[in-house]
Amino acid sequence: MDWGAELWDQFDIIEHHTQWGLDLAEKYIKFVKERTEIEQAYAKQLRSLVKKYLPKRNVREDLEAKFCQYQAFLQVVKELNDLAGQREVVAENLTTCICVELSKYIQELKQERKAHFQEGRRAQQQLENSFKLLDNSKRKFERDCREAEKALLTAERLDQDINATKADVEKAKQQAHVRGHMAEESKNEYAACLQHFNQDQSRFYFLEMPQIFNKLQEMDERRTARLREGYGLFSETERQVMPIVGKCLEGMKVAAEAVDEKSDSQLLIELHKSGFERPGDVEFEDFSQPMNRASSDS
Amino acid sequence: MDWGAELWDQFDIIEHHTQWGLDLAEKYIKFVKERTEIEQAYAKQLRSLVKKYLPKRNVREDLEAKFCQYQAFLQVVKELNDLAGQREVVAENLTTCICVELSKYIQELKQERKAHFQEGRRAQQQLENSFKLLDNSKRKFERDCREAEKALLTAERLDQDINATKADVEKAKQQAHVRGHMAEESKNEYAACLQHFNQDQSRFYFLEMPQIFNKLQEMDERRTARLREGYGLFSETERQVMPIVGKCLEGMKVAAEAVDEKSDSQLLIELHKSGFERPGDVEFEDFSQPMNRASSDS
Repeated sequence: MDWGAELWDQFDIIEHHTQWGLDLAEKYIKFVKERTEIEQAYAKQLRSLVKKYLPKRNVREDLEAKFCQYQAFLQVVKELNDLAGQREVVAENLTTCICVELSKYIQELKQERKAHFQEGRRAQQQLENSFKLLDNSKRKFERDCREAEKALLTAERLDQDINATKADVEKAKQQAHVRGHMAEESKNEYAACLQHFNQDQSRFYFLEMPQIFNKLQEMDERRTARLREGYGLFSETERQVMPIVGKCLEGMKVAAEAVDEKSDSQLLIELHKSGFERPGDVEFEDFSQPMNRASSDS
Repeated sequence: MDWGAELWDQFDIIEHHTQWGLDLAEKYIKFVKERTEIEQAYAKQLRSLVKKYLPKRNVREDLEAKFCQYQAFLQVVKELNDLAGQREVVAENLTTCICVELSKYIQELKQERKAHFQEGRRAQQQLENSFKLLDNSKRKFERDCREAEKALLTAERLDQDINATKADVEKAKQQAHVRGHMAEESKNEYAACLQHFNQDQSRFYFLEMPQIFNKLQEMDERRTARLREGYGLFSETERQVMPIVGKCLEGMKVAAEAVDEKSDSQLLIELHKSGFERPGDVEFEDFSQPMNRASSDS
């Protein structure tokens, strides 16, 4: 079943449907474009969050960087930066594969569709012209027949008229003969035009338009197949980054698990232990010794 | 190795480090909070994109909805809505597990830390008071020794003085005896204070402060362990939604693959086929028949 045979009288429907198909594809492209803008904005926000929480590059390595709980935090932040990068990859791939390539393809199809409909309209025009020729030749034949009939009746009337001269009768018969001949020629021309038109009409309905409609159907099916591919890329693009997203998440998990509370509290000891002994007992100071000595001297 | 023994003289360091630890946890909570805001904004944008491309609920089911290429588009849009929902789940879980629960835990630790340092300062104050008592008793002993010595020298001087009366000598000796007795009492009191202080000091450095520092270390390690858990939740929350995200992507893929270009172009035929035959040949209209009849009548 094809449009050429089944929808031979649905030129407008085919025109409308193929336009609808192109509009749907452009609607999808617009949808994807807006999705990529959301992805880019999301990635941008994640990146500025990351920037805010990562220390400045040229800051000297200070003590806090030595604690594994701080290193883990930085690692989590860095992995989030990589996640943001993957959102950018999604946005870029959606742009390239759908917004750019599918868009370009749809522009080509628009031209192709336009050409098919131009061809269709040209064929319609030709058939209309052929019909006009037919109609004119038919009208001429009808008119000539009426004239010939009138001339014949005039000749017959004069022939019966006793007052008519022989010359008048002969002239009227001559006239009727000429008119009859002209009608005969118009008939032949009309018959030729009719044959020509019927050939044209048959070619129009059974060859030209079916071919154009079938080309449009084939084009519309190609567009649909390409749209299916475009739909598929929407999830495929996302699926492609999943292994790297998984690695980022794994990296965050590993960073978290590397936090060892014992090691950090030992590090504090290593960094700040003075090595001094704790103070011992305060000794007794015997201020009575000089007195006792003085006392014993006496 | 513990802080109580190794960092006995690093009160300030321990105070600073435990505060740094709480600050790091709060910094992490703030980071997560900002992340959830980004996720919520992202989800909101995706949802309004979806709303824009889904037809209004109460619109009558029109012809275009019958074409599988349009159904697939709607399905892709709907799956994106579910993806947005998963970003909301991530935001909610991050809020609950990290922003709310970890935050609450950190508030409790702040109170606990404050109590430990109050206890430490109280112990310090007690030791200082004990030292003041020791110092005062030592000064009194020194002063009393000096007075006793002076009284003894005065008595000895009068004893050697030929002009002194016996009463004067006796009075001076009495005085020296009293002073000597007072110095003896001060000595005993100083010795008692010294013993008391040495007990206090030993208890302070070997028992009280080590216990406080160890409690702070234990608290700091608990906080670090909880922070590790919090870091882990960051990726875990993301990982939890991955199966549903995977299902959404699978749903998009299935929707895309369901697009069948042949079926859509057949549907157009079913919807719009008129069933009429294509026009046949136009028949010849013989306007010359009346003329021929008239001609044959004659």
